[in-house]
Amino acid sequence: MARCDKLSAAVVRWFGFGHPVSAGSFIEAFSCKCATKLITTHTKMADEVTVQKARFSDRVRIRSILGRPDGGAGLAGQKVRISGWVKTGREQGKGAFAFLEVNDGSCPANLQVMVDASVSDLTKLVATGTCVTVDGCLKIPPEGKGTKQKVELSVVEVIDVGTVDTATYPIPKTKLTLERLREFPHLRSRTNSISAIARIRHALAIATHTFFDEEGFLYIQTPIITTSDCEGAGEMFQVTTLISHTEKLERDLIENPPPTEADVEAARLIVKARGEAVAHLKSAKASKETITASVAELSEAKASLARTEERSKLKPGLPKLDGKIDYSQDFFGRQAFLTVSGQLQVETYACGLSDVYTFGPTFRAENSHTSRHLAEFWMVEPELAFADLEDDMNCAEAYVRYMCKWLLEKRYDDMELMAKNFDKGCIDRLKLVASTPFGRLTYTKAIELLEEAVGKGKEFVNPVEWGIDLASEHERYLTEVVFQKPLIVYNYPKGIKAFYMRLNDDGKTVAAMDVLVPKVGELIGGSQREERIDVIMERIEEMGLPVEPYEWYLDLRRYGTAKHSGFGLGFERMVLFATGMDNIRDVIPFPRYPGRADL
Amino acid sequence: MARCDKLSAAVVRWFGFGHPVSAGSFIEAFSCKCATKLITTHTKMADEVTVQKARFSDRVRIRSILGRPDGGAGLAGQKVRISGWVKTGREQGKGAFAFLEVNDGSCPANLQVMVDASVSDLTKLVATGTCVTVDGCLKIPPEGKGTKQKVELSVVEVIDVGTVDTATYPIPKTKLTLERLREFPHLRSRTNSISAIARIRHALAIATHTFFDEEGFLYIQTPIITTSDCEGAGEMFQVTTLISHTEKLERDLIENPPPTEADVEAARLIVKARGEAVAHLKSAKASKETITASVAELSEAKASLARTEERSKLKPGLPKLDGKIDYSQDFFGRQAFLTVSGQLQVETYACGLSDVYTFGPTFRAENSHTSRHLAEFWMVEPELAFADLEDDMNCAEAYVRYMCKWLLEKRYDDMELMAKNFDKGCIDRLKLVASTPFGRLTYTKAIELLEEAVGKGKEFVNPVEWGIDLASEHERYLTEVVFQKPLIVYNYPKGIKAFYMRLNDDGKTVAAMDVLVPKVGELIGGSQREERIDVIMERIEEMGLPVEPYEWYLDLRRYGTAKHSGFGLGFERMVLFATGMDNIRDVIPFPRYPGRADL
Repeated sequence: MARCDKLSAAVVRWFGFGHPVSAGSFIEAFSCKCATKLITTHTKMADEVTVQKARFSDRVRIRSILGRPDGGAGLAGQKVRISGWVKTGREQGKGAFAFLEVNDGSCPANLQVMVDASVSDLTKLVATGTCVTVDGCLKIPPEGKGTKQKVELSVVEVIDVGTVDTATYPIPKTKLTLERLREFPHLRSRTNSISAIARIRHALAIATHTFFDEEGFLYIQTPIITTSDCEGAGEMFQVTTLISHTEKLERDLIENPPPTEADVEAARLIVKARGEAVAHLKSAKASKETITASVAELSEAKASLARTEERSKLKPGLPKLDGKIDYSQDFFGRQAFLTVSGQLQVETYACGLSDVYTFGPTFRAENSHTSRHLAEFWMVEPELAFADLEDDMNCAEAYVRYMCKWLLEKRYDDMELMAKNFDKGCIDRLKLVASTPFGRLTYTKAIELLEEAVGKGKEFVNPVEWGIDLASEHERYLTEVVFQKPLIVYNYPKGIKAFYMRLNDDGKTVAAMDVLVPKVGELIGGSQREERIDVIMERIEEMGLPVEPYEWYLDLRRYGTAKHSGFGLGFERMVLFATGMDNIRDVIPFPRYPGRADL
Repeated sequence: MARCDKLSAAVVRWFGFGHPVSAGSFIEAFSCKCATKLITTHTKMADEVTVQKARFSDRVRIRSILGRPDGGAGLAGQKVRISGWVKTGREQGKGAFAFLEVNDGSCPANLQVMVDASVSDLTKLVATGTCVTVDGCLKIPPEGKGTKQKVELSVVEVIDVGTVDTATYPIPKTKLTLERLREFPHLRSRTNSISAIARIRHALAIATHTFFDEEGFLYIQTPIITTSDCEGAGEMFQVTTLISHTEKLERDLIENPPPTEADVEAARLIVKARGEAVAHLKSAKASKETITASVAELSEAKASLARTEERSKLKPGLPKLDGKIDYSQDFFGRQAFLTVSGQLQVETYACGLSDVYTFGPTFRAENSHTSRHLAEFWMVEPELAFADLEDDMNCAEAYVRYMCKWLLEKRYDDMELMAKNFDKGCIDRLKLVASTPFGRLTYTKAIELLEEAVGKGKEFVNPVEWGIDLASEHERYLTEVVFQKPLIVYNYPKGIKAFYMRLNDDGKTVAAMDVLVPKVGELIGGSQREERIDVIMERIEEMGLPVEPYEWYLDLRRYGTAKHSGFGLGFERMVLFATGMDNIRDVIPFPRYPGRADL
């Protein structure tokens, strides 16, 4: 009912305002519940082009206006309600009207909004960061104003305002550095750069799910809390309730100090005395009632002694057993960590459901302060049953190229913003990857190429010889200088790779592969997994790893073992690659690194 | 090259085997790199219907065969390679041939596979759990065998076998209880029930991303590690590196006991003696060289003293400052936890990007041993800017109904399996939800209805009166008995709801809503958020909460505040609702609960 009233009032207002407009398009814009009937009545009058309202709001997204091929010009004459935050505002004509650049996060472009002083107090609207909801009429801007806007909004009524105190607002109109913006993780999404990155990140995530779903992969949520360690991939965060329990205990011990040895002895003496009393009554053949009462007193004394003894054992500090921390008292009854990779766990689903992937957060408790490392980051890890290394490489290449195409198709406007503000080459890079097959070469060939380069005078910080792990400088040289396109290097020396990678027939290399891309270096690491139980056992032994923690993983090879392969893509690396940003802390909404975990 | 050889050999073999089949369909099935040319040559001979190979493997998914409307009959005559695990196998005709029921996880149905003893040793194939890759010819099974199979595979060659020792294989042919299966989290995905649930879970996750992407929401990854506490939603897990550092220190102190007070005193005496030596040499006007050497010795002694003093202060146990644990020494420089909800953080993105959602793991360190609680579970939390409670309810309803429709469309076969094995009504329930608008009523009305029921003799464990939090029994009574469909209850008493929910004009209730569904009870909880800074400050004070930790959250109200709403859906609850399963531990791949975090 309230909505219908709102509509009626609006109808009066709009038509009163003197904008001739078809009733059909008008109602569409408001989408009131009683609109159906009106639309039926007026169908023949309806404008062909009507702007679409956000489904769960009474506003129209700015993207629905400015994102059209005509930049919104074709919507001129339509009435819309829009909402958003003022990027810049200025009063003009000696305070007669104001122009606001309004952004609602749906696209990088701002809608130009014109408010007459007769409609609203302009001073509360123009501050950067102000939130406005306004009803207005879309118009073609007057020519000769030198504006690039294809359409602007002439405001009829200001519905809602969230003001800003410019004196204290931390995100002013003048640009802050990305580094400074990190101080305000709760407000930085209001900036052009961080919001464009968020939309690009979204597009890459949706592309990921769409690609794997289309290809018949199942999304498996692997555990975040784990009691396994994936190949000792790095320092792990511990997950525990022991510390809070210890703190609670210590507070309790201060408030109620534990019984002393004397207290325990006293309790013991009471038990003894009461025991003697019972014995005395019994031998004296006292009444049944008297004896029962005395026995009850004895029981109570015994219970009290037990409690006293128990409490006297309480000690501050973490619970210990045989000098070690007693993890049987921790939440999971054993030591637990944050996962460093979902691979080993997702393999258990691949060996039953064939093609699966995981997409979730992973963690490293490493004291890295670089622009390439986070303590919390997201990984995409597909695992393909009945697939060898070549299939794995084909999948990795198809996936990366799919993401690039998707981005060019869905978020070209955001990519243009990135190209303009941060990395001129980022659109060309996406186009290159989307259209060019990746280079493929063996590790051995890669070393040859690097050695050749060294022979010709190229200097690397890290020496080049067969057997080394390729350093970032080597990877980037190969992909950026030698091939100038993405590259897959495969068949690495077994000595530098994990135990689960399949041993090649040469006995020296394993069926591993890395995808290297310009700008970032290693984007993907993967391998065919060793499916032969005897070979994998040998590898575990060879590497000096304990067998027991991997028993469940080995079971996959003991029972119905299957050829399978997989890889991991660092999701933030992909966002870096796509956007051309330099610091990984700017491509994740809430970066975590040593000393920082805001919010 | 190897692939082409393989193909040639296969061509000889296939045609030799005497199955007349069009070359086109045959090549399609193998998709060899040199096939393009052959396909061109034979295009006119090609069968119209060719089965599609998995893109990153040389096999055909069983779903591509049996998932066709004709059950695969139209593919008879085609050559395919399939892979999968043997569900049941039996030798027949005195060992002349064997029938295998093979499943590859792509669909609940098994492909019947017939192997002649001349093709392979049958004994290694028939054990349950055996993994096979076979080439064969699809055939219509002989009539009158009483089989429901529309097509079966007659094997030409066994390519690969992963055997099983039936004596030790923990997942035998005979059915294990779901509870027993939980003992084998690494193998249970091979069972009909757990694999069907995994496919349903996948479908619900993809439906989630598709729905929100289509509606213009951006997927925001909120942090897993947090230093905030969302409304004190429950016990939190602590994330730390302090314990491992303490353990390392304690091991070190045992190996190298810290210096005693005597050691420190000795070091001090050396410094003193060397200081005196220097003074003596200076006053004796010794040579510059001699004095320099003596000063160097003094410096060394001082450094040694500093090290000794430093080490003498080392103590076992967690680092303390003023009697409390010194979290400045922890990884993030402060106490950190696993998130209980991404809502507060995702609101920061809603107040800049408008419509956003998060879909990620959340955690509770509660000692719950029920069939409805996990320590690690996934939540979907959309947040809508410029939306009120009604918009929020519309979004929640549209989302749940979208998921139900999606499931009926995409995974009907799995739903049939669930209906057959676990919950007869689950398909009807999905259909009901997909087709029926949800009931909506205020909390006050809900209490009236419950009181009426009590008046008519209905007995609840928990007493009913205005102001109580609805218990699960109340919720299920309303949705299952009174309305017999999903229900949204809204406008709850403020006393039982969080501080951030918008106060209604009555001053007594807040704009909160819960979606209740049959079988599960509460599936979704949401609210319009309090956007008025003065009101929210009052609410924080009223509830006795500290303001400081929420300063960043309050900033969203201080600077350009916007009307906004959101909700949270417990993803496992949705899987329970869809599948009709009873225990939440069976609808997540790797359940975590007190005492258990396998793998």
